[in-house]
Amino acid sequence: MPNCIIASTSTIYGDEPLAYLKEALDKLFINCNEILFIPYARPGGISHDEYTAYIHNIFKKSNKKVVGLHSFSNAQEAISKAEGIFTGGGNTFVLVDQLHRNQLIEPLKDKIKAGIPYLGTSAGSNICGLTMQTTNDMPIVYPSSFKTLGIVPFNINPHYIDPDPDSKHKGETRETRIKEFHTLNSPSVVGLREGSWLRVDGTNIFLRGGLQARIFEKGKKPYEMATGSSLAKLI
Amino acid sequence: MPNCIIASTSTIYGDEPLAYLKEALDKLFINCNEILFIPYARPGGISHDEYTAYIHNIFKKSNKKVVGLHSFSNAQEAISKAEGIFTGGGNTFVLVDQLHRNQLIEPLKDKIKAGIPYLGTSAGSNICGLTMQTTNDMPIVYPSSFKTLGIVPFNINPHYIDPDPDSKHKGETRETRIKEFHTLNSPSVVGLREGSWLRVDGTNIFLRGGLQARIFEKGKKPYEMATGSSLAKLI
Repeated sequence: MPNCIIASTSTIYGDEPLAYLKEALDKLFINCNEILFIPYARPGGISHDEYTAYIHNIFKKSNKKVVGLHSFSNAQEAISKAEGIFTGGGNTFVLVDQLHRNQLIEPLKDKIKAGIPYLGTSAGSNICGLTMQTTNDMPIVYPSSFKTLGIVPFNINPHYIDPDPDSKHKGETRETRIKEFHTLNSPSVVGLREGSWLRVDGTNIFLRGGLQARIFEKGKKPYEMATGSSLAKLI
Repeated sequence: MPNCIIASTSTIYGDEPLAYLKEALDKLFINCNEILFIPYARPGGISHDEYTAYIHNIFKKSNKKVVGLHSFSNAQEAISKAEGIFTGGGNTFVLVDQLHRNQLIEPLKDKIKAGIPYLGTSAGSNICGLTMQTTNDMPIVYPSSFKTLGIVPFNINPHYIDPDPDSKHKGETRETRIKEFHTLNSPSVVGLREGSWLRVDGTNIFLRGGLQARIFEKGKKPYEMATGSSLAKLI
């Protein structure tokens, strides 16, 4: 049964990376000495090595070793042997392209569903939904499919941002984009604001952090959900 | 030789749709009694009929009739017989999916390259680049390819927006996203601010409107280009 933290962002404004999640992560990874890091999303195009070293430096304060999935000759085996997994943010198209290209969707899904402690932030959270079709990222690469892990029975929009009532920009708001998603697709979408996360524990899915989430169900008006609420029934 | 207006947006803040382009459009479509409208991008998920009627109401003030491409049983033939073409904005994934699905990329490209007056706004401008990979839209549908018309020898980012120096949001800025595009792709990207357009006239490509554009060339620092500048040498 899944045991995950699915976070909107790795970092909140003015804070150190992952600092706002420290207490939750200490619990999640309590039995892990080593965390397998999936660096494929490459934020800003940094290399897998650079990204892994950056994450390693964060977790070494908690006495955890971080190893990059790219450093294994057999990535499927690395996943199957992992004690804990963290998929970092960056570009979701690049991440999903690499997961499909390396035939890792099913192994990763199976491992997470079997209960390995899993942390996703941003793109690494997006892939926990049914598809990556509510990402905010640019399609800088063409993946073989938009299907993702389906750890939760809905889609996720990380870094959810409310419309700016003073904006003079005519590009679509995030809410408009998610409503457009529902003209062609059925799954509900959880708009996770920065500082929010989903705690998946077996069949339970709870909203955590200090903020509300914005929920989009097809055919319904979007609505707010209070922190602490259960999302297990959302489909 | 192409004869196009490639605009960042159909509408600028506080103005009527296409009003800021009226003078340029009157010249572009001077010899057209009827404009073929491509409504596939479906902004907000509106129907092809609704979208075409909306555009028809704008152009009837200039005594032009607007007909929707969706209303023809043979879309390729409709394109080949058109006097002028306008592709409206909405979701670029939906637009490109439909163009590929209906095998319209080559006919449309050929017709535009042969010199038919063409207007694109937003998604309809994005497709004039080499690929749709610098769109801002959500991937709400999976197109069979990201390749687009290549009317200009670079990519376009419509609705370009500058980073907000006061923002506390940790999602990527537009500039960051375009830089990520260049970690995996070579074409230059023209960030067209709302109120700017490209005037393509034969081998000439000029920036029009009152604003600068932001130019992203791979391996160079992004820079500003003044209105009136030529972009014909940008690749």
